[in-house]
Formats: sequence, structure tokens, C-alpha cells
Amino acid sequence: MNISHIEHIGIAVKNLEESILYWEKIFGLKCYAVEEVKDQKVKTAFFMVGQTKIELLESTDPEGPIGKFIENKGEGIHHMAFAVNDLEKALAETETNGIRLIDKEPRKGAEGLHIGFLHPKSTYGVLTELCEDKNQK
Amino acid sequence: MNISHIEHIGIAVKNLEESILYWEKIFGLKCYAVEEVKDQKVKTAFFMVGQTKIELLESTDPEGPIGKFIENKGEGIHHMAFAVNDLEKALAETETNGIRLIDKEPRKGAEGLHIGFLHPKSTYGVLTELCEDKNQK
Repeated sequence: MNISHIEHIGIAVKNLEESILYWEKIFGLKCYAVEEVKDQKVKTAFFMVGQTKIELLESTDPEGPIGKFIENKGEGIHHMAFAVNDLEKALAETETNGIRLIDKEPRKGAEGLHIGFLHPKSTYGVLTELCEDKNQK
Repeated sequence: MNISHIEHIGIAVKNLEESILYWEKIFGLKCYAVEEVKDQKVKTAFFMVGQTKIELLESTDPEGPIGKFIENKGEGIHHMAFAVNDLEKALAETETNGIRLIDKEPRKGAEGLHIGFLHPKSTYGVLTELCEDKNQK
């Protein structure tokens, strides 16, 4: 697998607006986009830090993945995402190497990226996403 | 505060050697350093991904911060660290803005960095570290 950088860090928050203010005020970062991803039952907000985005995630449904995460573990870092240059191949390789996948095929994520998640049960507790940005090619 | 990039992502693991093999095999990353940080009761292993390091942390003491984290939450992402250009000033600003600090003054972390932690109770659950690399100046 060819990973170029950490594409983003996903952070589960209870209140997106309040959290945006916190990240802007304390760290001097600028929220450049807010987007709802209905498929994942979240509203997201993005900040750029060097090569990597901070993605805040507020659940739009208590039964969605972020709602459940916050109920079980509280607010905090939810996942990390690597930028890869061939997502389909990367997912296939990962599965061949014995890692359980949440997504066997790429699907659409926030910001038009193609994404796939690995299952934290086989990644030592780190919910890991692989992303491919087809617009950058 | 002037943040240039995400310096590292800290990941709590039960077994450092086993986890190193996982990160090398699955993601094709290369562990370039292993270091014990006695002060923090951890053994660490580092990988580079673009601008950002992955720092695996194995506890050397069940009563240490990583030992307790794993007992409470299991293995997984433990903290994120921002690279700043003036740590002392960044910590002071953060405290002035009402954020509770774990470290009021910079202390030495792994890889010779000067570090300071913000308290997750006032950072919406994200254990956040600020780092300054005085060797890069």
C-alpha cells in the first residue's frame, strides 16, 4: 500500500457549532467547509493543519456511528484516515493480509473522496479509513 | 498560536513488537526508532507518514497513563500533537483562553521534543499535545 500522508483525523463532537468555535479560538485554525453526509448520519466541519484535515463529526441520529461512539466512549478522536493512490487495490491487499474490512468496496465520503474503513477489531483498536481523492489525479 | 502541522498521533498498544509488525506489514510503513520514555512510563515506536509521525505507546507500568487508558478504553488512538513554534507562549495563551493544562511549563518528551499536554476535560475529549522541536531552529 502506498500511503502519501494522513488525510484527516476524525473527531466525534456533541455540538458542531460550539466545537468549531473552540478549534478556531484556541488553535487559530479556520473552518473552511461544513457538510452533511447523510449516508453516515453526520454533519462535518473541516480545518486544514499542514497536509492533514481535522474533521469534526456531529451525529444527526443517536443510532448512527458517531452517536453510538459518543454514548460509549464520549467525545474525542474517532478515527484516522490515510491517503492512498489506489483505494480498490489497497482494500483488496488489506483483506488479503487478514484484516477485516467494514467496506469491501470504495464508497463516497465527505468532500467527494472515495473511502473505505478497516474494522477496529482487527486494527488494534484504531478505526482506520483509507481515502482516495480522484480529483487530485 | 501558530501550528505548522500535526507532529504525531499517539496510539496506545498492548504489545509494541506485535503492533510494529502490524503497521509495517499492513501499511508498508517503516519503524525508524524505538525509545523508552521513563517519565511517561512508556516504550514508544515511531513511523513517518508524510509530515506526521505515528507514535505507538506501550505502557511499562499498569499505573502509568497508557496502562490506565487501555484498562478504561482499550487499545486505540490516545492523543494528537500539534507542532508549534513557541511552546511556552502557546501554553500561556491556551491557559489565558480558559483551557486547563496538564503541563503548565514545557517538559521533555520522546525524540528530544519539548512538549505540553492540554487536559481532555477542557478540549472536548481530545487529549491534545503541543510540541516544539528546538533542533529544527
